[in-house]
Amino acid sequence: MEPDRGIYFDHVAAAPLLPEVVDAMIPFLKEDFGNPSSMHALGERCEEAIEQARLQTARLIHAGDPGEIVFTSCGTEANNFALKGIPLAYRDRGSHIIVSPVEHFSIMHAIRTLEKTGFQVTQLSVDRFGCVDPEEVERSITPQTVLVSIMHGNNEVGTLQPIAEIGKITREKGVLLHTDAVATVGNIPVDVEALRVDLMSLTANSFHGPKGAAALYVRKGVRVQPLLDGGIQEKGRRAGTENVPAIVGMGVAAEAAMGEMENRTRHIRALRDRLQEGLLERVPQVYALGHPTERLPNILSIAVEFVEGESMLLFLDMEGIRIASGSACISRSLKVSHVMLAMGIDAALAQGSLLFSLGKDNRVEEVDRVVEALPPIVQRLRDMSPLYRKAKQAGKT
Amino acid sequence: MEPDRGIYFDHVAAAPLLPEVVDAMIPFLKEDFGNPSSMHALGERCEEAIEQARLQTARLIHAGDPGEIVFTSCGTEANNFALKGIPLAYRDRGSHIIVSPVEHFSIMHAIRTLEKTGFQVTQLSVDRFGCVDPEEVERSITPQTVLVSIMHGNNEVGTLQPIAEIGKITREKGVLLHTDAVATVGNIPVDVEALRVDLMSLTANSFHGPKGAAALYVRKGVRVQPLLDGGIQEKGRRAGTENVPAIVGMGVAAEAAMGEMENRTRHIRALRDRLQEGLLERVPQVYALGHPTERLPNILSIAVEFVEGESMLLFLDMEGIRIASGSACISRSLKVSHVMLAMGIDAALAQGSLLFSLGKDNRVEEVDRVVEALPPIVQRLRDMSPLYRKAKQAGKT
Repeated sequence: MEPDRGIYFDHVAAAPLLPEVVDAMIPFLKEDFGNPSSMHALGERCEEAIEQARLQTARLIHAGDPGEIVFTSCGTEANNFALKGIPLAYRDRGSHIIVSPVEHFSIMHAIRTLEKTGFQVTQLSVDRFGCVDPEEVERSITPQTVLVSIMHGNNEVGTLQPIAEIGKITREKGVLLHTDAVATVGNIPVDVEALRVDLMSLTANSFHGPKGAAALYVRKGVRVQPLLDGGIQEKGRRAGTENVPAIVGMGVAAEAAMGEMENRTRHIRALRDRLQEGLLERVPQVYALGHPTERLPNILSIAVEFVEGESMLLFLDMEGIRIASGSACISRSLKVSHVMLAMGIDAALAQGSLLFSLGKDNRVEEVDRVVEALPPIVQRLRDMSPLYRKAKQAGKT
Repeated sequence: MEPDRGIYFDHVAAAPLLPEVVDAMIPFLKEDFGNPSSMHALGERCEEAIEQARLQTARLIHAGDPGEIVFTSCGTEANNFALKGIPLAYRDRGSHIIVSPVEHFSIMHAIRTLEKTGFQVTQLSVDRFGCVDPEEVERSITPQTVLVSIMHGNNEVGTLQPIAEIGKITREKGVLLHTDAVATVGNIPVDVEALRVDLMSLTANSFHGPKGAAALYVRKGVRVQPLLDGGIQEKGRRAGTENVPAIVGMGVAAEAAMGEMENRTRHIRALRDRLQEGLLERVPQVYALGHPTERLPNILSIAVEFVEGESMLLFLDMEGIRIASGSACISRSLKVSHVMLAMGIDAALAQGSLLFSLGKDNRVEEVDRVVEALPPIVQRLRDMSPLYRKAKQAGKT
């Protein structure tokens, strides 16, 4: 039975693959099943396909050399690879790392593992929009600092960080800069040179590529200790048989994203703005989260007072509307978002957060349908909420 | 242009996917594109599919509880996960590890990384067939030993290790046992209970599943530190969005392998034996490597004196015959196989090794064609070899 996609506003969690991506992958699931390391015709065919995808991926982020792209199995692997591989490769230089408090769990938890092995981590602050202050980055750098890791765009609230400005500082100080660009690459133009980053994580599914393919950009000359030791794949930086079909799909998706970016963004931003306007107008006591302007065009994160995100998700799902509450990676853990707490948002309010992430195939009618559907759900849930009743009695609503 | 598969005897490097595997994957590349962590219908559909695949995979290795299967992106990741994750989780118990000298590079190189962080490693010896002696394992265990890792079947010469016997020893001594069963699971019956292992690596492609899906079996109650930190996927043991289509394909391939194993093995073993007999008879100064009986049914590894493996591969490839020389993961590095050196095989002879790995779709006519094709290639290469000429003059051929 085919599931009903419904109104799908959960593109940050998973995006549908482009038809041409699937078409490009299928031969590598069928006749071109070889191992790129094999020294015969079938292997060579796969090796060429991977190098083509590497070139396509490099172009999307304006990397000067395709050899700067190291393919990984997912964004989490790319982030772990950078956050563990750089400090270990540069341990002779120092043992201090700087991160923001709104990073993805794959950064936050990798950091904890590093701390257990003797690294010191400085966690910066963010303002109420989730923004890092470049001056704080500068003040936090010590002679021991080897790596600064600050995400490009936040996957929960969409806030964009001033990476280029931070990159200027890290270059001056001779410190390496990693950015988790999983939420941005494919959604907005990203240029590793303009951003002055040394390492960047990206993932295929963010631009309608398949699961199972992602990459870490490693600027030429930067050493990184492998996370996966073994064979000489990826020039010895990531062992393991390459996931050829997924990597091929990533390349095709990267090329499509390059070509269509402007049109996609214009369309998506207009829908997102309409959704935001509609919801803020129709639902009382709702707040838009993240930066008002320095924000990913595809993301709308709102906090709804006196209601739990999970309950809203379930009611919306019953009406065929698929959205999220915080990051997909933690949604089932039912924890309050560390991103929102870092932004100074009250824990109770953060639990009432909804994350709408739009895609190129969404339509105006879908936005209008959601704007219609949410207000009665919120009202119904509030009517059941003792907190809401109390607040009402106190004249706070 | 479709490449010519030709006569494909390189199944250890990559095996063609079963048509039903591809069919099962395609919906998850198209309409079922969701994130298993998403709390809506699309996410749930993917989560159910993964749990089904987990059950199918658990059954193939007779794991009692599907929760003992942790999906990874490849066999190399599973091996790194075990070899780094167990010593780190049990560091309070000791810092000594025991491995065989014929392990895959993903074990050998993971060990080197561990050694840099203060672990001591004992490398066992093997006999000329590549076999580990269980008594040497027993003697090597110290009160500091936390992990023994010995592969189930060797990917280069096919030799099967006495894992059940070793498992009896490690259980008695209270030491954990990991086995890299990437080359065996799907090719011969594998039962984690009978083998008495605590951890086992396996990969989907070994049984005609897709690239991008593999697993580490982690016996209930065994702790393991994640290699990929981040979200709560795989019960917190392996973060990162699950590669749903690949995992689904792995499950379908596992179920097919269970059902067809006996027929597949009978067919493959007969072909392999015919190939071995034909080649040893037709080519002078050729030696079969690995154990004569305790060997994977799909593998024939031979060493051809006075000729380089690479040259033979190229000539065979021109005739449409796809085979390997040593492990695919190191083939392009053109190094002499550490497996063969550990078996006491002369380096020059090891460089003349050829690895034929057969699959269920191979046919008798293909075997006969290879038996026809190889002797003139060997003769031609030998005629060009100064070493061969000298040996001939000395009456050694």
